[in-house]
Amino acid sequence: MGYTVIFQPSGRRGKVEEGTTLLDAARGLGVDIESLCGAARVCGKCKVRIEEGYFQKFGIESRANNLSSVLKEEKEKLEEYELYNHYRLACCAAVRGDVLVFVPAESRTGGQVILETGRKRDISIDPVVKNYYIEMPSAAMDDQRDDFERIRSALVQRYGLQRPIYLDYPVAKTLSETIRRAGWKVTVSVWDEKEIIKVSPGLVENLWGVAVDIGSTTVAAYLCNLRTGETVAKKSIMNPQIVYGEDILSRITYSLTNKNGLEKMSKAIVGGINSLLDALVEEARLTNEDIIDMVLVGNTVMHHIMLSIDPAYVGRVPFTPAFKCGIDIKARDLGLKMNKSSYVHWLPLEAGFVGADNIAVLIAEEPYRQEEATLIVDIGTNGEIVFGNRERLFSTSCATGPALEGAHIKYGMRAAFGAIEGVMIDPQTKVPRVKIIGEEGWFKAGDKPLARGICGSGIIDVCAEMFKTGIIDGTGRFNRQISGPRVRRGADGKMEYVLCFAGETAIGRDITVTQGDIRAIQLAKSALYCGAEYLMQKFGVEKPDRIVFAGAFGSFINKESAMVIGMVPDCDLEKVCAVGNAAGDGAKLALLSAKKRQEAEEIAKKVTFIETAAEPDFQIRFAEALSFPHKRHNFSSIHHLIEDGRFQHLNGDDRNRRAKFDR
Amino acid sequence: MGYTVIFQPSGRRGKVEEGTTLLDAARGLGVDIESLCGAARVCGKCKVRIEEGYFQKFGIESRANNLSSVLKEEKEKLEEYELYNHYRLACCAAVRGDVLVFVPAESRTGGQVILETGRKRDISIDPVVKNYYIEMPSAAMDDQRDDFERIRSALVQRYGLQRPIYLDYPVAKTLSETIRRAGWKVTVSVWDEKEIIKVSPGLVENLWGVAVDIGSTTVAAYLCNLRTGETVAKKSIMNPQIVYGEDILSRITYSLTNKNGLEKMSKAIVGGINSLLDALVEEARLTNEDIIDMVLVGNTVMHHIMLSIDPAYVGRVPFTPAFKCGIDIKARDLGLKMNKSSYVHWLPLEAGFVGADNIAVLIAEEPYRQEEATLIVDIGTNGEIVFGNRERLFSTSCATGPALEGAHIKYGMRAAFGAIEGVMIDPQTKVPRVKIIGEEGWFKAGDKPLARGICGSGIIDVCAEMFKTGIIDGTGRFNRQISGPRVRRGADGKMEYVLCFAGETAIGRDITVTQGDIRAIQLAKSALYCGAEYLMQKFGVEKPDRIVFAGAFGSFINKESAMVIGMVPDCDLEKVCAVGNAAGDGAKLALLSAKKRQEAEEIAKKVTFIETAAEPDFQIRFAEALSFPHKRHNFSSIHHLIEDGRFQHLNGDDRNRRAKFDR
Repeated sequence: MGYTVIFQPSGRRGKVEEGTTLLDAARGLGVDIESLCGAARVCGKCKVRIEEGYFQKFGIESRANNLSSVLKEEKEKLEEYELYNHYRLACCAAVRGDVLVFVPAESRTGGQVILETGRKRDISIDPVVKNYYIEMPSAAMDDQRDDFERIRSALVQRYGLQRPIYLDYPVAKTLSETIRRAGWKVTVSVWDEKEIIKVSPGLVENLWGVAVDIGSTTVAAYLCNLRTGETVAKKSIMNPQIVYGEDILSRITYSLTNKNGLEKMSKAIVGGINSLLDALVEEARLTNEDIIDMVLVGNTVMHHIMLSIDPAYVGRVPFTPAFKCGIDIKARDLGLKMNKSSYVHWLPLEAGFVGADNIAVLIAEEPYRQEEATLIVDIGTNGEIVFGNRERLFSTSCATGPALEGAHIKYGMRAAFGAIEGVMIDPQTKVPRVKIIGEEGWFKAGDKPLARGICGSGIIDVCAEMFKTGIIDGTGRFNRQISGPRVRRGADGKMEYVLCFAGETAIGRDITVTQGDIRAIQLAKSALYCGAEYLMQKFGVEKPDRIVFAGAFGSFINKESAMVIGMVPDCDLEKVCAVGNAAGDGAKLALLSAKKRQEAEEIAKKVTFIETAAEPDFQIRFAEALSFPHKRHNFSSIHHLIEDGRFQHLNGDDRNRRAKFDR
Repeated sequence: MGYTVIFQPSGRRGKVEEGTTLLDAARGLGVDIESLCGAARVCGKCKVRIEEGYFQKFGIESRANNLSSVLKEEKEKLEEYELYNHYRLACCAAVRGDVLVFVPAESRTGGQVILETGRKRDISIDPVVKNYYIEMPSAAMDDQRDDFERIRSALVQRYGLQRPIYLDYPVAKTLSETIRRAGWKVTVSVWDEKEIIKVSPGLVENLWGVAVDIGSTTVAAYLCNLRTGETVAKKSIMNPQIVYGEDILSRITYSLTNKNGLEKMSKAIVGGINSLLDALVEEARLTNEDIIDMVLVGNTVMHHIMLSIDPAYVGRVPFTPAFKCGIDIKARDLGLKMNKSSYVHWLPLEAGFVGADNIAVLIAEEPYRQEEATLIVDIGTNGEIVFGNRERLFSTSCATGPALEGAHIKYGMRAAFGAIEGVMIDPQTKVPRVKIIGEEGWFKAGDKPLARGICGSGIIDVCAEMFKTGIIDGTGRFNRQISGPRVRRGADGKMEYVLCFAGETAIGRDITVTQGDIRAIQLAKSALYCGAEYLMQKFGVEKPDRIVFAGAFGSFINKESAMVIGMVPDCDLEKVCAVGNAAGDGAKLALLSAKKRQEAEEIAKKVTFIETAAEPDFQIRFAEALSFPHKRHNFSSIHHLIEDGRFQHLNGDDRNRRAKFDR
């Protein structure tokens, strides 16, 4: 009645018939062993080690007798020392007695994705495009099958693919020539177990895909090995559409008001992605034709414009996208420089202002698998927030405007070289220390750090610090009782705070924070706060268990400062984290796993979009949330910061004054 | 328990609940009533007449009470006299009592296809692309569905289509704009119940497709109304590839020996089809975008070249096509000037030398539904023959060469203006009468019919007549005992027969039939005969029950002459017919019926291709079949021709001489 086979490290065991190969035994027991060539004894990937173990009769000699003898192919594929150490190819070694087999890590399928935060995640690598190595009998007068039928039969018989299997037209053109030149041994790349999108000569081990995150400002692309999950190259560029408008609304306007405006912007982004593809394949020493899959994410307007779909109705009540479901489009229909027969996959959209990038964040962070109610905040030009847990999820978008990214701030700038990204203000002297992108450490007054302006995280920091040190009060107004060289009236007669004097800058002018800047930040943070508050209310809680900042920008925010100004609801600071470009991570995961794409589709339907601006008490709540940190709510998580001696102004009169914020 | 409804003329009857519309009642009883708008009361196609009948209680008055009252929409859609004559719209009239309903012919679905022979065939019209009229609620803040989802829901709910339904990318581009401009009322064209390939404003009644038969010489295209089955326009052109070679072998050679040869020929035929599309839509006053489906047929080499697939391996042992199955390719991938999102469908191939045109012949003639064993002969540059019945089918291709089309014949020409297409020879005087394309009646010697040459049917006729009148014997050799002005030695010293003297021609030279011409016809007809003989042998019979000549050429052949020279096996002459361009008919049927495409796929797999030239006794059989009509077989069907007085030479010595044919 057969023999016992045990596989380590999984410990799976079972009885198999005499003569069963270890590979078939492993498959029967659900043990994954890599075999690129489908047991054709060509790839050498299914190496296993025959272990000594607890089988009583095992000794070197008896073990040898429990497997068929070593084949020629094994001697070719295995190193001398491997043979000596009892390695075998699982596709060659057939069972003749009880055996204990160790499957080394490199022979196991599945892999590890390194996320943008540096975190690693073990996932089951299951790309939508897979390679199948096949060997066919050559054509003969007594075998009237055509070339495609030969391939199809091999895929069905050898790999158990189900018919129908289609042949994409461009592949058909060169099929006969390719398989004959390859001596009837080819690797077939199959999309979704349905369609042949490439036929390559011989055994091809690796296959490659690209994940693209199209931001309004930045486009990032990741070249991944779809077999191992490894990210082998990463490139980013400014979104070339930026010449047509800085944000999504100005791009919608451009397409509405310019003939061929949509077409120009679409061509610009397709051209941009093509330049990224060129750069990626150059770095990885591949060709464009090697890129066999692509996943795209981006907000709804980027999605529509990239696809040449008029975004007019996305920008107008009731903000209806042409379609929200994920879509597969032939690369050739979009003019992308990759394997012609490949599909590119856009992840689904959630709503008019919550796009595929947000879905990507969700499948990367998986709040829908967690008990904790998580608030996910993705700040771009728009703020997109999601709140919920495994029970249910709500999302909204907040019209934060671009202030949080440093735009519409007097000395605001992008997070680039020379931008002030961090600020600390001495509570007594009101003299700041600043941190500058591209420079190490903190600079104090009098240093020559050559600052050029203030970026988003800097402006949040400086607001929080000005509030903590009493330069501004809870309503955001400058404290008239403080004056001095740094807190002064500007040329326009309005109050301002000098962060760097002209001599300390690279621009030869004082870098100041104005009353207008403070107001812009208040409007932005209030929009975000209100959005979160509505979602929590729909969900039925008052506080989030966790807060996650997604997006490159979120990584640089000082979470204490964000809390001090009341940009997000009160939450244990230890439960607040930034996850970097989670949209890029989600795109990568969708590239490596068909299940993740399925998950994206389900989540997009599951998330309930709330149009918060349509809520009847929105104006009142918005006004209340303008205060630092909030007019009504008690931010217990920052009380320890308040009590550290720099927050005297929060006592007595100051507290009252916060309540008098004038709309 | 409901009321009885009877539909005439089908006589179907059943009980339905009160309030059921007549349309729903009809559907429930399997009675087809046309409704283009899906019961939206828009199209007015579902007219029915309420009959007086055998219901005892029926009188004008009581009948009116057995249906709901006439609606506003019915008053708009029905003429005054129709209302007076008790016409109703089936979608409006609801049952309130027993009714007897007559469904007029124009309200029934299904239609009639007029075949090239002029025969009519009733078929169930069931095109692969169908139109669905839908009305949607407009987008609103409290209905967050996207535009595509709105359409999809309507298709699922209203027409019972099954998900998934895809949206082809080019349609997505203009979707939002189209449905809004159309006031949320659109007609959606769906391919194969799966993919949306067009969205048009309002109600669109008709949809259009083109069937194309790509011959090596001629390309014919038929524009059909996919709703009614009507052929509304028909155009043909010379195959523009003809400049690269007259026949398929020379085109294969051209592609092998010329850089970009394949590309040039592919572009030529695509350009040719585009010019046909332009001409068809102009004649029918449509636009190219109105053409929403296409079926293509042609031989295997035409198939490969049109698709830019190297035909090298089709032209070389073992003659393997890249693929044989039917294929759907986006029109835009082929550069065809029709609706961009449409697919074109190539019918499947049978083998290297039996192409999609032969499959088209089969689905038009349906030998696989018949008891009689039918021989189908399609003569082009190649002869393709099929033999069988509902039990089994065999096919082969015969290397007839182009002689039967008039090529490689001294005065041979295409079947064009001035070609001699029919010949009768006086048995006594040996003086011929000829029939000429473009002229009426038979001309005799001395007339000035201005002949230019001899086409295929003429050459078959003249061979048969020369044999019947003893000018040549059974081996095809000139009878040396006959001489005179018309049977003479030519300039080369070889025997020839003068069909027209120089003065009777438009070319100023004698039109003659040479010994070489006779030999060329013998080789061609022997190839055909042998092919048929092998297929009959495989099938297990000695004679066909029927013979069908397919192809334009077949329509002009004199069937007695074909039998006299032994081009086809002996068969009751009454059971021999020509069906014209059956390949075109088959392409049309596949255009109008999804079932026919399915049938084509099944038949292509069912037909067994026999490589007759590979049979061991092929050379012997071929030699035997060179004789007129055959060395061994007795052609009883033409005995009455032999006995009519013009066949004395078949007695005695002549019969013996035929046996001495010298290979």
